[in-house]
Amino acid sequence: MVTRLDKNAYGKNAIKLSKIIRRPDCHDIRHISVDVALEGDFDAVHTIGDNSKVLPTDTMKNTVYALAKDHFTHSIEAFGLYLANYFLSHNPQVSSVHIGLTEYTWARMTFDDTPHPHSFVNGGSEKHIAHITSHRLGTQLSSGITDLLILKTTDSGFEHYIKDKFTTLKETDDRIFSTQCDINWQYSEIPPDPEALYQAIRLDLLHSFASHKSLSVQHTLHAMGEAVLKTFPSVNEITLKMPNKHHIPFNLQQFGMDNNNEIFIATDEPYGYITGTIIRE
Amino acid sequence: MVTRLDKNAYGKNAIKLSKIIRRPDCHDIRHISVDVALEGDFDAVHTIGDNSKVLPTDTMKNTVYALAKDHFTHSIEAFGLYLANYFLSHNPQVSSVHIGLTEYTWARMTFDDTPHPHSFVNGGSEKHIAHITSHRLGTQLSSGITDLLILKTTDSGFEHYIKDKFTTLKETDDRIFSTQCDINWQYSEIPPDPEALYQAIRLDLLHSFASHKSLSVQHTLHAMGEAVLKTFPSVNEITLKMPNKHHIPFNLQQFGMDNNNEIFIATDEPYGYITGTIIRE
Amino acid sequence: MVTRLDKNAYGKNAIKLSKIIRRPDCHDIRHISVDVALEGDFDAVHTIGDNSKVLPTDTMKNTVYALAKDHFTHSIEAFGLYLANYFLSHNPQVSSVHIGLTEYTWARMTFDDTPHPHSFVNGGSEKHIAHITSHRLGTQLSSGITDLLILKTTDSGFEHYIKDKFTTLKETDDRIFSTQCDINWQYSEIPPDPEALYQAIRLDLLHSFASHKSLSVQHTLHAMGEAVLKTFPSVNEITLKMPNKHHIPFNLQQFGMDNNNEIFIATDEPYGYITGTIIRE
Amino acid sequence: MVTRLDKNAYGKNAIKLSKIIRRPDCHDIRHISVDVALEGDFDAVHTIGDNSKVLPTDTMKNTVYALAKDHFTHSIEAFGLYLANYFLSHNPQVSSVHIGLTEYTWARMTFDDTPHPHSFVNGGSEKHIAHITSHRLGTQLSSGITDLLILKTTDSGFEHYIKDKFTTLKETDDRIFSTQCDINWQYSEIPPDPEALYQAIRLDLLHSFASHKSLSVQHTLHAMGEAVLKTFPSVNEITLKMPNKHHIPFNLQQFGMDNNNEIFIATDEPYGYITGTIIRE
Repeated sequence: MVTRLDKNAYGKNAIKLSKIIRRPDCHDIRHISVDVALEGDFDAVHTIGDNSKVLPTDTMKNTVYALAKDHFTHSIEAFGLYLANYFLSHNPQVSSVHIGLTEYTWARMTFDDTPHPHSFVNGGSEKHIAHITSHRLGTQLSSGITDLLILKTTDSGFEHYIKDKFTTLKETDDRIFSTQCDINWQYSEIPPDPEALYQAIRLDLLHSFASHKSLSVQHTLHAMGEAVLKTFPSVNEITLKMPNKHHIPFNLQQFGMDNNNEIFIATDEPYGYITGTIIRE
Repeated sequence: MVTRLDKNAYGKNAIKLSKIIRRPDCHDIRHISVDVALEGDFDAVHTIGDNSKVLPTDTMKNTVYALAKDHFTHSIEAFGLYLANYFLSHNPQVSSVHIGLTEYTWARMTFDDTPHPHSFVNGGSEKHIAHITSHRLGTQLSSGITDLLILKTTDSGFEHYIKDKFTTLKETDDRIFSTQCDINWQYSEIPPDPEALYQAIRLDLLHSFASHKSLSVQHTLHAMGEAVLKTFPSVNEITLKMPNKHHIPFNLQQFGMDNNNEIFIATDEPYGYITGTIIRE
Repeated sequence: MVTRLDKNAYGKNAIKLSKIIRRPDCHDIRHISVDVALEGDFDAVHTIGDNSKVLPTDTMKNTVYALAKDHFTHSIEAFGLYLANYFLSHNPQVSSVHIGLTEYTWARMTFDDTPHPHSFVNGGSEKHIAHITSHRLGTQLSSGITDLLILKTTDSGFEHYIKDKFTTLKETDDRIFSTQCDINWQYSEIPPDPEALYQAIRLDLLHSFASHKSLSVQHTLHAMGEAVLKTFPSVNEITLKMPNKHHIPFNLQQFGMDNNNEIFIATDEPYGYITGTIIRE
Repeated sequence: MVTRLDKNAYGKNAIKLSKIIRRPDCHDIRHISVDVALEGDFDAVHTIGDNSKVLPTDTMKNTVYALAKDHFTHSIEAFGLYLANYFLSHNPQVSSVHIGLTEYTWARMTFDDTPHPHSFVNGGSEKHIAHITSHRLGTQLSSGITDLLILKTTDSGFEHYIKDKFTTLKETDDRIFSTQCDINWQYSEIPPDPEALYQAIRLDLLHSFASHKSLSVQHTLHAMGEAVLKTFPSVNEITLKMPNKHHIPFNLQQFGMDNNNEIFIATDEPYGYITGTIIRE
């Protein structure tokens, strides 16, 4: 019998880094988590324990902190591209580098319409993410948004679906639509200002969600993805994961009361899970 | 040997409820979690399994959903007070009722400065909480804020502390101050508009945190609590839990670089844990 | 207006420590989390930022690691008692020390009935905990078990409870009883071998749970607590928190099938929450 | 501009189900979570909101509970295969069905070497998983184990790696090796008794981990995977994810003490992340 090592990778995950950007009249705070992963000529590490080509994951961590001083000055995308290139160019044994970045949002405090120079409140579960994959022949960049919780109280229905012997769900033309989105889009070329583009795409996604007359989660997912491709020429592919966090009407009739779409059981599990990728042809 | 049943309670936790408030021109979404606990004449339940005085926790849950229709119309405090009174007045065997409420924040989406009538984005980890304890002789109400993540990049130091043989911490007059607050305050009387008061106290807490020249977490904790007592006469006690989420300067010197308070390791564990109660005399 | 600082404390939480005990023929692994909290003469820290009496939480952390070398050799209770005494005797400004300890369970791997000398598999969610509070006049020790998930498939019912207009729960004399226990007991005197006693009390709790004909969660909670007090003279008080993790019979009748207590929806939320303290008189 | 819907799927996740198997002299408890996902002719759902080919995720949930009565009687693999075939054969619009199953482990309580007939204690974080993908031309089955926490206190080193200007890690020939494994293997044919095979493979994995002289995580990962392929002919591919949960020696020297590989800081983040796939050629 012969076995073979197939796809493999190694790296350091969850490198939590914060940086103060000291401007003349105020501070910015950046707070990120970085993942680094390498692929390459690592068969001998696995098969005979030869570490001579292994850059330790501890060194990857140190490198991220050290390079952040001069090179984490703008978007996470720009920092990730720098890191990917650094690891690739300093390690001939490496065929591809993957950098994943997550930025936690800190919103500047404001008092009497005046932004505070150095105090912040956490912006919530929603996070800006970026993924860079660099190999010898090129680099792919995707950006995204994760843990974005959005909800609309109407303009959402679900009807005319298959009924079989196990169907108990009632059709509705008016339900709560609540989802914790994880959305990633791929750029055909590196954009000049990825942070501004991220903010514009985020707003476009929210607007599509809010204004859509939804006949299903799939229907809205597609509308959101298509809108991004239409408005942003540098995006050539978008994948949306939109779990359906069900708000189930509570049965008030059993107590002689009416539930006019007012009172709901907010559930976490089980949840619908809808995913789709829209591409530019 | 004789044993005795001492303090005991039972109830239902994590009753997740959402409600759409349908206004003429827009919808509001309310999303809460309710805990109900009863104390009273329950010795026989424990000792001989006599359930004749037990209101099932399943019924508590149904009651919360049913009463939400007509009575969850304003603040969580008002709904909690109604629930506490309902359970107390309908259950003579009960000596005290505790209601705990947590409200998840949904912020209305806004496009071109126009608030959207029915779409929302989750407001983050920060949650408004309330606790009501009602017994035959009276009712206590406390409100609070939990999972409030705040951070300031300067105006915070820690110096002149005890040094002993296990001391390695370096003194600093300029560090990041980051904390995930859990703050509760007690009202001497039921306020007429608990939601407005909550918002005002929250803003006061943020302002105290932002403007304080902090010599320690304790120092700022005390300033925040004292400010609330000074500004809000209906608050007679406030307890603050302010874990210190350390941002530790990364040692760049080992690589021949300077770290001018720029690059930090953002840590979750271990964490400082600071708590204090300030009362009005 | 005059305010006053009331109860306050500070310390370091989640000090994660592992230790290898090197025996002649095998290794033991100990893996714990330690919390340290101090109370005392700390008013000036809060009110004027005077840190001269503050032992930094970073130093507490260092102290725990350093003292573990020679003094974490047996039970977590013994180590906690040593730590409490150390902090109290070295800090005259401190009036009381609280030490909380959690031990993660690692079970030795066994192959062909032979225990492996140095390999372990994690023993699950269940954890041994201990709490020590030392002040100038004495010390209290409590031990406990947390996140103990236990389940019985029969000998559990719930009947003859109050019915009102919001009742929908059906009586049953045969249901699943599943709970994630958090149990703490207080010792009247420091036991000579807290680890052995912990194991004996744990087994007694499991046995009471398994053999009880349960008429309610309260009924079983009481039986478990009473059994511990009866069997272990050094325990003078026990508090049990036993949330009811409901397994709800799935309605198969709607599909023309019978559910003879076979198929259940396993739920996490909402959950019944039952707590009680049993004391020796 | 033309866009196109690419890969898409929908289903229901986290269907939590428990079942009592009633044997003559004892009960078994089974506790699982099921995910269902469908792919197929669903373009019109996305593009024009035509739900006529949509089997609602609520119906999937009902179907899982209903079919569990007669068809969840042995392994999760067998139940998953039945479910996959059911959804595929009843839904001509579907091209492929994915079923994911997770089984929570409940260990029977034992008193005085006698197994208890109906009481159980949760077996911990470790879970048996299975994935089935069925399409019109065939079915793939993979089984696995997730959240398996294993640790060895010696026979593990890491030396002779690359040193560069950001290297601070010290070489060691004796360190703690701790990992939370996620391991999946693919069967070339459906095994007659997947549960027995799972238990045998699990034991083989533990044994490889325990007995290996590890020169790196990669080295041990490869040895574990290769051993499975060698011993179990029906396995043709195995993927191991073995994050390195670092136990870092605490610096006791700064206090004039020696740390002879005894006292460690047990960390969760950042963590090494090592993954590899071994295949049979």
